This record gives sequence, C-alpha cells and structure tokens, in this order.
Amino acid sequence: MSDHLKHLLEGHKQTVEQKMAEILPTCPVNAAIVDEAMRYSLFAGGKRLRPGMMLAVKDALGGETENVLPVACAIEMIHTYSLIHDDLPCMDDDDLRRGKPTCHVKYGEGMAVLAGDALSNAAFWVIAEHTRDKDLVPDLVTELATAAGTSGMIGGQVLDIVSEGAKPEIEAVREIHRRKTGALFVASMRLGAIASRATSEQLEHICEFGRRVGLAFQIMDDILDLESDAATLGKTAGKDLEQGKMTYPACIGVEASRKEAKELIDGGRELLVGLDPHGDLEALAGFIYSRLN
Amino acid sequence: MSDHLKHLLEGHKQTVEQKMAEILPTCPVNAAIVDEAMRYSLFAGGKRLRPGMMLAVKDALGGETENVLPVACAIEMIHTYSLIHDDLPCMDDDDLRRGKPTCHVKYGEGMAVLAGDALSNAAFWVIAEHTRDKDLVPDLVTELATAAGTSGMIGGQVLDIVSEGAKPEIEAVREIHRRKTGALFVASMRLGAIASRATSEQLEHICEFGRRVGLAFQIMDDILDLESDAATLGKTAGKDLEQGKMTYPACIGVEASRKEAKELIDGGRELLVGLDPHGDLEALAGFIYSRLN
Repeated sequence: MSDHLKHLLEGHKQTVEQKMAEILPTCPVNAAIVDEAMRYSLFAGGKRLRPGMMLAVKDALGGETENVLPVACAIEMIHTYSLIHDDLPCMDDDDLRRGKPTCHVKYGEGMAVLAGDALSNAAFWVIAEHTRDKDLVPDLVTELATAAGTSGMIGGQVLDIVSEGAKPEIEAVREIHRRKTGALFVASMRLGAIASRATSEQLEHICEFGRRVGLAFQIMDDILDLESDAATLGKTAGKDLEQGKMTYPACIGVEASRKEAKELIDGGRELLVGLDPHGDLEALAGFIYSRLN
Repeated sequence: MSDHLKHLLEGHKQTVEQKMAEILPTCPVNAAIVDEAMRYSLFAGGKRLRPGMMLAVKDALGGETENVLPVACAIEMIHTYSLIHDDLPCMDDDDLRRGKPTCHVKYGEGMAVLAGDALSNAAFWVIAEHTRDKDLVPDLVTELATAAGTSGMIGGQVLDIVSEGAKPEIEAVREIHRRKTGALFVASMRLGAIASRATSEQLEHICEFGRRVGLAFQIMDDILDLESDAATLGKTAGKDLEQGKMTYPACIGVEASRKEAKELIDGGRELLVGLDPHGDLEALAGFIYSRLN
C-alpha cells in the first residue's frame, strides 16, 4: 500500500470515527445497554471504506465538510446495522465479525435487533440534524433510503435469502451484488456528490464509477471468503460455499472473477478524467482490488 | 361510539390506507416476497390511531393535507415495523397480531426482520420524497427519528426487556410507557402540528395533550391485556402477566389504573381550549378511554 493511500484511508477513518462518536445520540442511562451494543458494533474497527469514498468525492469536487461528514457517518451507521441484522441466527447466523463476537453473541438477539434498528434510525436523524445546509436534506434522505431499501440493499438481502441453494447463475449473482453491496457503494459516491452540489454530469460519472467499483469490491469479497482464513478475514471464512450462496467464483471460477474485477476497476478509473484532481478516488479503487481483508 | 367519532375514525383510516398503498415503494419482482410481507403487516387492519390523531391535528390547525398525509403514512410504517420486530421470537415471541398470524409466523424470521427494516427505512423515504413543502423535511425527519430512537420508542423497548421479571414499580412503568408507546403518540401530534406550521404555543399544548393521551392509551392497553381474550384483542391476551412485564395494573391495580387514565384524558381535554374547533381531538381522546381493542 502506498504512503498516499495509507494516509488517505487512515485520515478519513479517524475523521469519521471522531464525528460518529461525537454525534451518535445517547439514550437514558437505564437503557444504556443498547447504546453499548450500538457502539460495540459501530466502533469494531471497520475500514470505513464507504464514508472514505464519500469524503474522497467531497475532496475531488471541493464540497463542504459540514455538509458531507454527517452523511458519511450516516452511511456507516446503515452499513453497520445491516451487518448486525445479517449476522443474526435467523439470517446468516454468524458468530464473528471484524475479528470480534457478533452483536447478538455479545448482547443477545433481542438487543442486537434493537441496536440495528436504532442505528438505521439514527442515520436519518444525523442527516436531518447535522447537515449544515438544510436545503440538501430532502435529497440526501431520499437517496440514502432508496439505496438502503427494498430496491437496493434490503432487496439484495432478500434475493440472497431466496437464492440460497439455487444453481449459481452469473446474471443472478450480478443482481444480488448490485443491490446488496453495490447500492450502498454507489450511494456513498452519489451522496458525497449531492452534498458537494455536483453538476449532473459529475454525478453521472461518479455514479457509474461507484457502480463498477462496488461490483469489483463484492467480487473480491467472494474470492476472499473462499481463499482466506478467519484470522485474515476477521469473519468466518468459507461461509458462502457452506451456505450454498450465489457467488462469482461459484459461477465462473476464481481467475475469471479476478479478471472481471480488474476490468471493472480499470473501466472505473477511466471515468475519473478531470474528476479526481488529487488521485484519491483512483487510489481507493486500486485498494479495493488489492485488499486482503 | 358516536356517529361523529365513527365517521372520523373510518374517514382517516381510509385516507391513510389509500395513501400508503399508493406511495409504499415497491421492489424488484424477484424480491417481491418482502413487499408482500411488508404489506401483510401494514394492511392487517389496524385502527390507524396515530395517523388519525395526526390528521385531526391538521384539521384543527388548518394544515395542508399534502404536507401532513405523507407523515401520517410514515408514522404508521414506524409503528408497524416496531410491532413486527417486537413480535419476533427473540423479543416478545408473539404468534398473533391484529387477529392474524404475526409476520414471522407467516414469512419466517429472516423475512420479518427485513420487512421491519424496510418499513422503518421507507418511513423516512416517504417524508423526504412525498412531503410537498421540502423546507419542512429536516424538522419532520429529526422529530420522527428522535421519537422512534433510543431516547423514545426503541429506548422503551429496551427498558421493557431489561425490566422483565423485576418488581413492578409505578415510576419505572411510567417511564417504559412514556417511551415505548408515548413517544410515538406525542410524535403523531407534534408532527401533525409541525407539518401544519403551528405556532410554538400551539405545539406546546398539543404536545402535552399527546403526552397525557398517550399514557392513558397504554394504561388502557395494560388493562385490556389483563381483562380481554384473544378474540376481542386480536393478539394473545395475558402475555404481560405471563412474561413478568411491568404494567400499571400490576403496580396499582385495575381500578386505580382506570382512574389515572380517566384523569389523564380529562386533563388532556382541558388543554384543547381554542385548539379543537371541530371537537375531533376531544372525540379521539374519549375513544381511547372507551376502546375495547
């Protein structure tokens, strides 16, 4: 990893974690256990890739931190809530996440459901309450809720459940990935662009860049699930195969999957001409292809 | 029930159900099962009391339907999602709701978690996308998310869980009720007032009216759980006692509970002077005290 990239990732991570700690609503002392559960999962050491991408878009477009940073916190809250609910016994039934016991293992299933609910709810609160320019709020809420809803992330989780055990078909896998991971990835970029008051042309290019990079990210995730061990991955490895999940490698093999991810990243980079003065978006796209966990 | 009240409840119910059916986002056809699960619970025949109160506030203050009705739909979506998650085996473990099998009994636990998540998410989308005057959106989102979050509804659910089996104390019961049911009740009124551009004095009176009526509603709910059967109630009766829940009757007995509910309603009515030209809010408050289910 280059020094530029390391510095970039670490800087955005610190900015977002500090802001999240500052603005996450607290609750009455006698219900503090849900606060603890929310913070346990939210501050479990994620890479903060989605908010990092959003802040990179802001820097590329010269947006205002006071308008973008609250939204960056919101998208990480949505991502974290989806992981908490996805890990529940009635969903993927996972015990390990980011190298630690999952929320429901630590706090019980009921509390994990509520902690996820509270993070989802807090994401919208943070945008409405903390975005500086209030005229941006309606579009930001619409965009985030669309990406996180049944036509995006939740729709992808549903497809994931109903496709379990079905014969792997590459088109079906693409659609699951496009929704389940892709929607929130694209939203990271789009929200960063909207909050930076991007032109419609900038928005279009950034959206397509996000679409390609998001799919590449999920392909690499599929490969990593297959090839890594739990210690490297921070979560249970080999779950996809065991649960009969639709994955890229299951459809077209590891080498063809890796090749498609590379092509997506390369194609994404070409869209950045004139849009990435500091090279941050290009560096982050490269990181996604090269990441080990 | 007076003809005025019957007409009022039925009218608001129809208005809200028609609008919800119109604006609830749909999802791709291959994930349609989550749409079905959301609609199964959302259109299970609730009384629509919260949106009804909101529309009554709008009528009292002369607010605009295009600004209030989407918010009325949103609060019913939040209420329904909280019921779906509350009924899960890892929470209250209930099989019956509004006289029908609960969402997880019908669609499985995983799908019920996702349907609840999707309704919560859709509530914020509906406000941002469908409220006519966009300048209202930030305040409406902040208000709803605060009421539904850890300092309100979710906080109350947490208290409810952590208090199970503890010795019933009236102050603790009041706090659970104030959060778990009260917060969304008060929010129904406050959101109606905000979307109707109420003065701060109007807002204050309506908020206090909502606080009293909301607590009275929950006290009556506690009594009904104890005294009714499942056929009348539409949900499993006697669950509170069985699960060692904190309730009003468990603390101070049925008669004293009924008396406090009546005092709250009467006190609430006194706040309506000059605020309730059609008598709708007073009629709804009376209904809450007299309701059988």
